[in-house]
Amino acid sequence: MKFGLPLRLTATLLVASALLRADEGMWLYSAPPREQIKKKYGFDLTEAWLEHLMKSSVRFNSGGSGSFVSGDGLVITNHHVGADDLQKLSDEKHNYLRDGFHAATPADEKKCVDLELNVLQSIEDVTARVNAAIPPGATGTDAVLARRKIFAEIEKESLAKTGLRSDVVTLYQGGAYHLYRFKKYTDIRLVFAPEQQVAFFGGDPDNFEYPRYDLDICFFRVYENGQPVKPAHFLKWSADGAKDGELSFVSGHPGTTRRLLTVPELEYIRDNQFPYLLALLKRREVLLGNWSARDAENARRAKDDLFGIQNSRKARDGALAALQDPDFFGTKVAAEAAFKKQLADRPDGKDALAAFARIAGAQKSITAIVTRQRLLEGGAGFNADSFGLARQLLRAGDERPKPNGERLREYSDARRESFEQQLFSDKPIYPDLEILTLADSLAFLVEQLGVNDPAVKAALAGKSPRARAAELINRTKVREVAFRKKLYEGGAAAVAAAKDPLIEVARAIDAEARSLRKIVEAADETKQQAQAIIGKARFAIEGTGNYPDATFTLRLSYGPVLGYEENGKRIPSVTTLAGLYERSAKQGNKGDFELPARWLRKKSALNLATPFNFVSTCDIIGGNSGSPSVNKAGEFIGIIFDGNIQSLSGDFGYEDVQSRALSVHSAGILEALRKVYEVPALAAELVNGKR
Amino acid sequence: MKFGLPLRLTATLLVASALLRADEGMWLYSAPPREQIKKKYGFDLTEAWLEHLMKSSVRFNSGGSGSFVSGDGLVITNHHVGADDLQKLSDEKHNYLRDGFHAATPADEKKCVDLELNVLQSIEDVTARVNAAIPPGATGTDAVLARRKIFAEIEKESLAKTGLRSDVVTLYQGGAYHLYRFKKYTDIRLVFAPEQQVAFFGGDPDNFEYPRYDLDICFFRVYENGQPVKPAHFLKWSADGAKDGELSFVSGHPGTTRRLLTVPELEYIRDNQFPYLLALLKRREVLLGNWSARDAENARRAKDDLFGIQNSRKARDGALAALQDPDFFGTKVAAEAAFKKQLADRPDGKDALAAFARIAGAQKSITAIVTRQRLLEGGAGFNADSFGLARQLLRAGDERPKPNGERLREYSDARRESFEQQLFSDKPIYPDLEILTLADSLAFLVEQLGVNDPAVKAALAGKSPRARAAELINRTKVREVAFRKKLYEGGAAAVAAAKDPLIEVARAIDAEARSLRKIVEAADETKQQAQAIIGKARFAIEGTGNYPDATFTLRLSYGPVLGYEENGKRIPSVTTLAGLYERSAKQGNKGDFELPARWLRKKSALNLATPFNFVSTCDIIGGNSGSPSVNKAGEFIGIIFDGNIQSLSGDFGYEDVQSRALSVHSAGILEALRKVYEVPALAAELVNGKR
Repeated sequence: MKFGLPLRLTATLLVASALLRADEGMWLYSAPPREQIKKKYGFDLTEAWLEHLMKSSVRFNSGGSGSFVSGDGLVITNHHVGADDLQKLSDEKHNYLRDGFHAATPADEKKCVDLELNVLQSIEDVTARVNAAIPPGATGTDAVLARRKIFAEIEKESLAKTGLRSDVVTLYQGGAYHLYRFKKYTDIRLVFAPEQQVAFFGGDPDNFEYPRYDLDICFFRVYENGQPVKPAHFLKWSADGAKDGELSFVSGHPGTTRRLLTVPELEYIRDNQFPYLLALLKRREVLLGNWSARDAENARRAKDDLFGIQNSRKARDGALAALQDPDFFGTKVAAEAAFKKQLADRPDGKDALAAFARIAGAQKSITAIVTRQRLLEGGAGFNADSFGLARQLLRAGDERPKPNGERLREYSDARRESFEQQLFSDKPIYPDLEILTLADSLAFLVEQLGVNDPAVKAALAGKSPRARAAELINRTKVREVAFRKKLYEGGAAAVAAAKDPLIEVARAIDAEARSLRKIVEAADETKQQAQAIIGKARFAIEGTGNYPDATFTLRLSYGPVLGYEENGKRIPSVTTLAGLYERSAKQGNKGDFELPARWLRKKSALNLATPFNFVSTCDIIGGNSGSPSVNKAGEFIGIIFDGNIQSLSGDFGYEDVQSRALSVHSAGILEALRKVYEVPALAAELVNGKR
Repeated sequence: MKFGLPLRLTATLLVASALLRADEGMWLYSAPPREQIKKKYGFDLTEAWLEHLMKSSVRFNSGGSGSFVSGDGLVITNHHVGADDLQKLSDEKHNYLRDGFHAATPADEKKCVDLELNVLQSIEDVTARVNAAIPPGATGTDAVLARRKIFAEIEKESLAKTGLRSDVVTLYQGGAYHLYRFKKYTDIRLVFAPEQQVAFFGGDPDNFEYPRYDLDICFFRVYENGQPVKPAHFLKWSADGAKDGELSFVSGHPGTTRRLLTVPELEYIRDNQFPYLLALLKRREVLLGNWSARDAENARRAKDDLFGIQNSRKARDGALAALQDPDFFGTKVAAEAAFKKQLADRPDGKDALAAFARIAGAQKSITAIVTRQRLLEGGAGFNADSFGLARQLLRAGDERPKPNGERLREYSDARRESFEQQLFSDKPIYPDLEILTLADSLAFLVEQLGVNDPAVKAALAGKSPRARAAELINRTKVREVAFRKKLYEGGAAAVAAAKDPLIEVARAIDAEARSLRKIVEAADETKQQAQAIIGKARFAIEGTGNYPDATFTLRLSYGPVLGYEENGKRIPSVTTLAGLYERSAKQGNKGDFELPARWLRKKSALNLATPFNFVSTCDIIGGNSGSPSVNKAGEFIGIIFDGNIQSLSGDFGYEDVQSRALSVHSAGILEALRKVYEVPALAAELVNGKR
C-alpha cells in the first residue's frame, strides 16, 4: 500500500482549496485530506488509522458498500444493498426480502447466489507507466487502444504477482492512473435481515427525506474455504454510537459524480435539461397515477414505472433546487473562473482554455437541436415499449449489413447477444397501457413541435394523438415475439414487406432522428476529449491536493454529526426509536408507515430514547449506501443509507448548509437486535468483535 | 309563448348548417331545429310537444337543471346539484349529503334554506325594442348604459303585467335580445337523496369517464302557499327508459360555451394556454400529492386544493385533446373560412372582416407577453395565499385614493364589501403549505424567466427559491388579520412603513405586473367589441337558423342513445346494475369504489340486468346537470349527470364521434328506489305521475 504521495501545499493548491466547501470531498486513500482535518478539527489521520479503516471497508460489487464488524467475517450493509440477494434467496414459501431473515445457527447462514465482495489492499500510482505506453501524438482510437493494452498488461502482471484482483482506475479525467488491488470474496452468506417495512419505513413518501426512521441494515458473513474469514481488520462497534457535533468519517464507494462539468454545461442542465425532464416526469406521474387510481389491475401494471418516475422526479427536483441556489451555483462559477485564471497564467494553459471554449461550443450545438432530439430520437414523443421494438426492428434491418465499426453502438457485434435477448424477451406489454402512454407522448410531440411540423404530420397521419395511438398499438404486430424474430432474421426486406404501421412511423422519422443523434454524439465526443485535456491541466496544477470525481472506488469523506435549518425550523441531527412509533401512529400505522407486527409487540421492551438515525455533513453519493460511519477512534457509529433531498445536488457539487448524509445509528441497531429481534448472539458478536 | 320566429331556410343558412356536425346544437326553444330532426330522424317537433317539455323543465338557480316528474310537484335533479342544499340541511347529527335522506311522510319533507327554481313560461323577441333604445352612434359606456336602461324597463313592465320573473337575455353576441319569463318557486322541500358514495360512485378517478355506474339523483317537491304545486306540465316516467339507438332529447340550461372563438384564439388555447396550464396543474398535483403522502395532516390541509387541481386538469386534458384533433379543429377552421367568405360577398361584411383582423391582432399582443403576465400578474410565480394578501394590501393602499372609475376593477366601490370580507377572512393559512407552494412557484419563475431576469432577482434577493420562500413566509405578518386591518386602514403610508418583506416583493414587481395586466385587458376589450360586431353580422346572415352560445337559459339538444369506439374497443351505450357491483368488487369495494352497506345487503333482491347509466350524442355542457333526457313521446328516460372526457371539448365545439352526454337511466332509478331504498310510494308516484 502506497499512501505516500506527498501533499503539495503550493500556492496554487491553496487557491484551489479555498474554493472547496468546508468538509467537501470524496478523498483518495492515497491522498487523504490530512491538512484540512488537522486544521479544522485538530485530528491527525495516521497511516495506521487509514489502513485500518481501508481494510475494514468492503465493496459490494452489486453496487454498494459495507464493512467488516467482527473478527469472524461479519459484514454489515444496507437492506437495500442486500435486497437483490434477499430476493434471489427467496422462493414461493419464503419472502426474505419482505419478511426478513435470521440464521439461528452458523449452519443456517444462506449462501448468496452470485454476490462478490472486494476489500481494497493497496493503491499504486501507475500514471507514468500508462502515459509512457501511449505513442507520442496518438489520438482518438489509437490512444484508446494503447491505453486499454497497458491497463490489461499491468492488471495481468499484478494478479500474477499478488493473487489479488487488480484494476487500473482512471482518475482526474485521465490526470492519473492508479492500480487498485482487492482481496476478492465470493462465498457470502446471509446472516440477518429485518422486514422491508421497517428497513424502508416511510417508503417513497419518506425517500430522500429527513427526519427518518429506517432500520436499513442487513448482515452477511464472508467465508473462504468453507470457513468464516478472520479479517485482519474490522471495525469495533461503538455501543454509544454517533453523538451530535462529533467529527465522523465515511469510508465507501461513491459511484459517479460530475463535479467538473463546466459552467455552460451546468447552465444547460439548470435552464434546459432538468426543467424539461421534470415537467415530463411530472406529466407521466400524473398520467400513470390517475390511470392507476381507476383500477387495481392498472395500478399493478403501472407500479414499477410509477415508482421509477417518482424516484427520478424526487432526485432531480433536489438537484435542480441546488443549481437554482445562487450560492451553490456561484461557487461553481467562482471555482471555474479561478481555475481559468490559473491556466491563463501558465504557458501550457492555452490548450486547456481552448478546450473550455470547445465544450461551450459543443454545448451550444446540443442546445440548438435538443428539443427535436429528445422527441424524435430520445423517444419522448413515442413513449411505448411497442415503439421501441418497432424502431429496433427497423434499425437492425438497416444496421446489421454494415461493417461492425460503422453501426450505431447498440447494433455492434459486441452487444449483439444482449440486444437479441432484450429484443426477443417475452416480458408482458399491455396494449391499454401502451395506448395511454403513446397517446400522451404524441400529444406532447404536438405541443412541442406544433401541428404543422412535418415529423408531427408523419406521426399522426391526420389523426388525433389518442386516435392515432390506439390505431398504431392495436394494429402493430411487434408485440408478438415470433413476428419480431421473423423480421429480425429477414432483415430490411422483411421489415419493409411487413408494412407494420408502427415500424412505418419509426421509418418516417428515422432519417431526422439519426441526424439529430449524430449531432449530439459528436458534441459529446468533443466534450469528452476537451474534458481530458482540462483534466490533465487541472492535475498538473492541483495534483492530488484535490479529490477526483467518484469512480466506485474507495474514498474517505469527513464531517460532523450535524443538524440543519429548513424552512426556518431546526432539524436535529439524531432521531430516536420513539420518533419511529410517533411517525407511524400519526399516519395511522398504514401503508408505507405500517410497522411490522413484531415492532408493535415489542414496543414496551424498548428504550425509546435510543438514537435511531442521524445525519452528518459527510460528502457522499450513490454507491456509498452501506458505508460505515466511524468516529475518530475508528469505531463503527452508524451506517450510511441515504442522503436527504438537498444532498441530491452532490452529483454536481458539495454544500454543507442543508445537504446531509443519513445513517442508521449503531445504538439503534443494537437495541433492535436485542429487544425486537431477540438475537442476542448477533448483538454480542458486534459488541465483542467475535462470535 | 312565441315560438313563432320563422325558420329562414335561405341558401346562406344551408352553407352554415352544412358545417354543423350531426346532432350539434343547444337550440333555443323559440327556434328549434325542426328541419334537421325531421330530415335526419323523420320526427316532427310540434308546438305542443315543445311546450310540454319546456314547461316540465326546471332551472335550479344554484347552477343546474331539473324537471317535474309528477303532478304533485315532484322534481328530480342530480345529487351533485342538490348537494349544496343537502349540506345546508345537515347538522352535527345528520349528514344528509353523505348518508342520504328520505321523507317517509309529506310532513317529513325538509324545506331548503335558500333554493330558487324557475320554470320558463314564454320567450319574446325584444331585439327591435332594445336596438331602438340605443342612440345612433352610441359607443362604449353610453351604449352599455342605454342597454341596461331598456333591459330594466322591459323587465319591470313584464313583471308588472304578468307577475312572472322576467329577464332580458343577450343572445348571438348581441345579435338578438329575448325576454324570458319564468314562474319562480322558493318553497322547495327535500324528498329523497341516496348516499353520496353511490351518487358519486368512482369519485375523482371515474369523474368524466365512461362506462359509469352513478345514482346521481335527488328529489325535491315544489310548494306554493304551503301546498305542493300541481304543475300543468310534468314528464311521464318511462319505466323501460332509454333504449340503445333511439332518438333522445335533453332539455336544460347549459351555462357557458365559447364556440364562436376565432381560429387564432383557438390556436392560442391549443398551442399555448392549455399546454401551459396543464403543465402547471400537473406540477402542482405532483407537489401536493407528494406532500400529502408524507403526512395525514398534510393531506387534510391540501385536500381541497388537490381535488380542484385534479378536476381542472382532467377537464383541460379532455379539451386539449379535442383541439389537437385535426378533424375537430378542421371543422372550426372550415366554418370560419366559410363564414368569412359569406362576409366577403356582402356589402356590409367589411366591418366584420376587419373585426376578425382586430381579434387576431389583439391575440398576438397577448401572446407576446403572456408568459411574464401569468408569472408576475397572474400569480403563477408567487403561488401562496400570503402573497395574494400582501399584494391586496399594497394595491389597496395605492388604489383607494384614486377616483372610483380609475381604479383596478377589484378595488371599485361596488366590490368593496366583498373585497374587504375576503381580505379580513380568518380562514386558516398554513405556513408550511405556503412555503411549499411559494418555493415551487419561485422555482417555476426562475425556470421560465432565467436567473438573470430583473423580476427574478427582485423576487429572490440572491437566495434560492426554497430559502427565499421560507424566509418570506416566516417573516411576513400578512397572515395576522389585525395586521391586515391596520395596513388597510392606514393606507399606502402604513403599508410602506410596515416594511413587510412579502409586501415589498409585491411592490418590487408591481409596476411591471400592472403594465402587463393593462396590455391583456386592452386586448380583451378589443376582442369583445370585435366579437359583438361579428355577432351582429353572423346573426344578419344566419338568424336563428344557428344556435347561440350557451347563456344558462333553457335549450333543447337532441341525438341518439349511442355507444362509441375508444382505443379500438366498443363502449356500449348502456351499463347495468351488475356492472356497478362488478366494478366495486374489482376495486376491492374500497375508497371511491366502496358501496353503501344497503347496496351490499340488497344485491340479491335486484334485477342486475336493469340498465343503470347510458350515453347519448346530445350536445350538453356544465349547467345541463340534472336535465331530463326524454324520448320521442316526451317521456322521462333518464337524467343527465356528466359528460365523458371527450365531451370536455364542448366549450369550443361539438363532435359526435366520441363525445357523449351521460345519464342515469330511468329504469335503474326505479329499481333502486324499489329494491334498495324500499320507498314504494316514491316509485309509485313516478310511475303514476301522482301521489
